[in-house]
Amino acid sequence: MPSLPNSVDSALRQRAARVVPGGMWGHLHAARLPEGYPQFFARGEGCRLWDVDGNEYVDLMCSWGPIVLGHRHPRVEEAVRRQAAEGSCMNGPGAVMVELAEKLVATIAHADWAMFQKNGGDATTTAVTIARAGTGRRKILAARGSYHGSMPWCSPSLVGVTAEDRAHIQHFDYNDVASLEAAVDATKGDLAGIIVAAFRHDLGRDQELPSPEFARRVRQLCDAADAALILDDVRAGFRLHPAGSWEPLGVRPDLSCWSKAIANGHPLAAVTGNDRFREAASTIFVTGSFWCEASAMAAALATLEAMEEEGAIARMTAMGQRLRDGLAALAAENGIVLRQTGPVQMPMVLFADDPDFAKGERFCAAALRAGAFFHPRHNMFLSAAHREADIDRALEAAAVGFAAVRRTG
Amino acid sequence: MPSLPNSVDSALRQRAARVVPGGMWGHLHAARLPEGYPQFFARGEGCRLWDVDGNEYVDLMCSWGPIVLGHRHPRVEEAVRRQAAEGSCMNGPGAVMVELAEKLVATIAHADWAMFQKNGGDATTTAVTIARAGTGRRKILAARGSYHGSMPWCSPSLVGVTAEDRAHIQHFDYNDVASLEAAVDATKGDLAGIIVAAFRHDLGRDQELPSPEFARRVRQLCDAADAALILDDVRAGFRLHPAGSWEPLGVRPDLSCWSKAIANGHPLAAVTGNDRFREAASTIFVTGSFWCEASAMAAALATLEAMEEEGAIARMTAMGQRLRDGLAALAAENGIVLRQTGPVQMPMVLFADDPDFAKGERFCAAALRAGAFFHPRHNMFLSAAHREADIDRALEAAAVGFAAVRRTG
Repeated sequence: MPSLPNSVDSALRQRAARVVPGGMWGHLHAARLPEGYPQFFARGEGCRLWDVDGNEYVDLMCSWGPIVLGHRHPRVEEAVRRQAAEGSCMNGPGAVMVELAEKLVATIAHADWAMFQKNGGDATTTAVTIARAGTGRRKILAARGSYHGSMPWCSPSLVGVTAEDRAHIQHFDYNDVASLEAAVDATKGDLAGIIVAAFRHDLGRDQELPSPEFARRVRQLCDAADAALILDDVRAGFRLHPAGSWEPLGVRPDLSCWSKAIANGHPLAAVTGNDRFREAASTIFVTGSFWCEASAMAAALATLEAMEEEGAIARMTAMGQRLRDGLAALAAENGIVLRQTGPVQMPMVLFADDPDFAKGERFCAAALRAGAFFHPRHNMFLSAAHREADIDRALEAAAVGFAAVRRTG
Repeated sequence: MPSLPNSVDSALRQRAARVVPGGMWGHLHAARLPEGYPQFFARGEGCRLWDVDGNEYVDLMCSWGPIVLGHRHPRVEEAVRRQAAEGSCMNGPGAVMVELAEKLVATIAHADWAMFQKNGGDATTTAVTIARAGTGRRKILAARGSYHGSMPWCSPSLVGVTAEDRAHIQHFDYNDVASLEAAVDATKGDLAGIIVAAFRHDLGRDQELPSPEFARRVRQLCDAADAALILDDVRAGFRLHPAGSWEPLGVRPDLSCWSKAIANGHPLAAVTGNDRFREAASTIFVTGSFWCEASAMAAALATLEAMEEEGAIARMTAMGQRLRDGLAALAAENGIVLRQTGPVQMPMVLFADDPDFAKGERFCAAALRAGAFFHPRHNMFLSAAHREADIDRALEAAAVGFAAVRRTG
């Protein structure tokens, strides 16, 4: 068990406590998870993950999104090896940058062009900068509680952040047209853009798909104000629709932000845009030492090709539905009321009457010991490597979790 | 020649012009270089680089810094392969994160702890956030013209940036104690930190090492104000001194920012800090999807070990001196006055009486055709893979460059 005092994980935590503030930072800090969750991992393969003590899990987090084809997908890893054998970080990009940009433009409905970065937050910051450059205006509207990165302008924490860092960020409520209209009015003609997540996937609350009315109104308001509609597809991108998460709604953004799943775990982000913002995008100065690294771009190209050939989105949808149905049935058998919301490929599982997430944590801790890595408050992620047998294995672990909730509930 | 209309490079540029705004972005844009420089690269090995048309260059840019042991260093690449064969982007870090943090703490004089990111700009932004969190104050002093990244708070461009993004950034002149003191006074008790580059390496001007008086005064002023001294060692780090670039001056920062050379081209950045800022560092929220990627950390550990074993800094120093001496001799033979400034491992070569860099561009364009990749305005970088024969090869190319300057000058 990872929480045992003489485990490899606990020995590493003790060492980390000396040389890393708080032992770890950010969203991967095990302190944000129930007791018993490991901090350190040794190995991944397909939809399975092993911690440093050799415990094996059906991985339902997929590294918080990046792993979309399964850990160490052979085709992606081979593409990286082949590129790395020639060169990756050079005095300019490789030819693969052009191939990848062409692939994104061919695949993503609104995209006339692409630029590449490393972090999802690089992509959202770049998009905001382009929106301001293209409009000559300053205000950015964002939904209250939506996560767009951990930079000072959008971090969920205010520690070390100044008021001026977010002086031009104003808020509306996701899916609330009236609050959106009021927020646009409040910009008094200074609206540069509206940044909006593909769907509402805030921590610790039910997920909500965008209502068609809301999505269309975002587009209309941006058009009326000549402002940029920025779709933050960092978390959902490539799991809902290959052409962009709002394509089924018939609403196209001006700028989209991509990262996480784009290269199956290799570090890459992208902004795509339409021709209206091409000139603005060419006038800003954004760069990074590793943004042109050819290996990550080769990984992305292989990932996008493999996703198409494997029918990855259809697979994740089928397996996500199997998981959702199985969890619903198990919960019902145990007399437990669950709320499962949002796209099945990105499951959010919350317990009724669980304001402090105590039931969710009990469920997760027991399911973890039984071999499945669930999250009690954050949306989870399926990959194309999940098969029926893996989902059924996760459901066996979930059954142990529900029994633990029933016993103590 | 890369500039020929029917070259592979020019065909790629035409394709890129359709799918990337301006055909490229940032510091790797070939438009920032003299005509004839290639935009796209195919291969690197040691200190040699090949463009997509098969032209071979002695690489004096080293990817603008990251390549410190030479392209595709066997030990580093093997460490990456070994880690990638197990897993890299997982639900938490690998054990290698602890090993790397311990290595940095053991090597870097001021460091009691480390945190990891992807971009140099992530490191500087994180350090600024920690300084504000730890002091409860807001003002950050930076030297006019120093580059600390391309985020809105520090980008050299104001396009798409608002005044509020830099409301709390105030300036002094590098190496100018009086201007530094005045800048501190102007913060009126609201000083969170002073961020300072390891030495003055601004674009297009002579490099300046920090005067001992200046460095000591930065430290004194931070101590007097209980503010953070942030050393931005992103560009110079690991090339001047393994314990930190200001260690020979006897001045230790509270926080240091690292990236570029840390993993020999693999994407990684780090902030190191002392115990005074440990608590603050544990209270801020910063994170990224790929910040715990184990492969890049394995690359960093292998890079730091290989640098020690190969005596990398001594080698770069010797080869940098050989290059500087050779360039000086060639310039004198041609009756040309050069200014070579800063550490020899990071050469800056500027021509006297060359306000528009026309001579420098002519020199570089001719030297490029003769097989060496110089830069006319930006500091260059040596690697531990450069040998006498490589420097001599670069000097042969430089002789062609000087001849071109003499002919037209």
